[in-house]
Amino acid sequence: MDFVGTFRAIAAAAIAFVPPAIAQDLLKDSPASDWRELDPENTLYLELPAGRVVIELAPAYAPANVAAIRKLLRQRYFDGSVVLRVQDNYVVQWARPEDDPRAKAMAAVKVKPEFSRPVDPGLEFTPLPYPDTYAPEVGFSQGFAAARDAKRGETWLVHCYGSVGVGRDDDADSGNGSELYAVIGQSPRGPAPMGFYEKPSQRIPIASARLAADVPEAGRLRLEALRTDSATFKAYIASRATRKESWFKDPIGRIGVCNMPLPVRVKGS
Amino acid sequence: MDFVGTFRAIAAAAIAFVPPAIAQDLLKDSPASDWRELDPENTLYLELPAGRVVIELAPAYAPANVAAIRKLLRQRYFDGSVVLRVQDNYVVQWARPEDDPRAKAMAAVKVKPEFSRPVDPGLEFTPLPYPDTYAPEVGFSQGFAAARDAKRGETWLVHCYGSVGVGRDDDADSGNGSELYAVIGQSPRGPAPMGFYEKPSQRIPIASARLAADVPEAGRLRLEALRTDSATFKAYIASRATRKESWFKDPIGRIGVCNMPLPVRVKGS
Repeated sequence: MDFVGTFRAIAAAAIAFVPPAIAQDLLKDSPASDWRELDPENTLYLELPAGRVVIELAPAYAPANVAAIRKLLRQRYFDGSVVLRVQDNYVVQWARPEDDPRAKAMAAVKVKPEFSRPVDPGLEFTPLPYPDTYAPEVGFSQGFAAARDAKRGETWLVHCYGSVGVGRDDDADSGNGSELYAVIGQSPRGPAPMGFYEKPSQRIPIASARLAADVPEAGRLRLEALRTDSATFKAYIASRATRKESWFKDPIGRIGVCNMPLPVRVKGS
Repeated sequence: MDFVGTFRAIAAAAIAFVPPAIAQDLLKDSPASDWRELDPENTLYLELPAGRVVIELAPAYAPANVAAIRKLLRQRYFDGSVVLRVQDNYVVQWARPEDDPRAKAMAAVKVKPEFSRPVDPGLEFTPLPYPDTYAPEVGFSQGFAAARDAKRGETWLVHCYGSVGVGRDDDADSGNGSELYAVIGQSPRGPAPMGFYEKPSQRIPIASARLAADVPEAGRLRLEALRTDSATFKAYIASRATRKESWFKDPIGRIGVCNMPLPVRVKGS
């Protein structure tokens, strides 16, 4: 449940995210300074049979867990791991198989939970001015959907479609980065089998997992994301909140924090 | 965008929805009167290669559109239709292929839009006492996730995972029930190809679509749903809002209107 990043499925080098027409114009005309290139130290490539999945890590929100994951990546821990669970409308989860010696060795490793962090005026938070069911305030921070509770002085990343978290057992410190999940919906349908594949042969193999920083330049995807504190992102929020397309008979005037996929593009494209 | 029902994927006769352990006890001990059997006139079976999908129609919210769909079903209009679009985290859409003569004949048929209906004190509305991003008030009505705007005097069914709607073009009255969609997520990733299969051979065939009322008794699934105005449903809301399982380190105390899958079971099971 510690949030480490956002999962962005990218088949080969094609960016899966294509914003609606109105937002496209807005993005096309945006100044280069409204975009930021992903930091290779915070960019994780998972190589699946269907292509590369790019995950951006969020060390500002989960420094200990991100450090643990970086260490595992550099030990090639996830090479030969598998997607062992796909629970419709809930999560995709991956890890080394339970009976693998390296998985067994990790069982005793504990990393402190980072469910939230203290509010810090120096940390970007771009508020979304609409109510949310779960948090007193929602918005965006460094490209991630985020929430804030001023009374408790806490801020955290939100469980939206595509968010990646650290799996754990009941104990809060039982996660260690060796088991990760991506959110693919919001209604759990437990209990067992909870989407776990019955046979190991059904599992989806992960050929390798690397930090972009550890991949030769030629093999990297140079991605840039729209800065969530930029004027363009604020205009993009407004364009999605108030629907201008003729299809919408009611412009609505609001948007949910999980209904704002982050614009990402290949640099120079 | 007119809401006609809720899509419940059921492979063979096994109910896909299995509530969490705590809710299971609650449901097991519930009185029979807290459940209602689905009305065969409002129950639609779609027969797909993966099994039967059961959809409950909502004539209280979209009477004209439900009547149009019933008429099409009785003309066997959807036998030989196809799932022609699966857009990840957005919608699944099905219809007869565009070049089919019956599809062409339907192009001119218009049914009035039923985006919302007047609030009526005689129509069940069980409020969910938590804020929602889009509506002043949310809750449940006749088993469906619903919303209400007292100021406008309007109520409507909500676009949650599994909701089924009537597809249309830009004109509000261009839908006619011959093209339906199920919501599978909340972040559109338009524009083209918007999840449309490129080749007709990729489409998923729908062998038949029938009202349960038109299927011989032996071929029906006798399903019952928890009444959303029952004491058991209210306890189920409370159990999902305030998480008691030891896995949750924060009980939260709130739940979203789309995070409350309706308990459904085979009658007598």
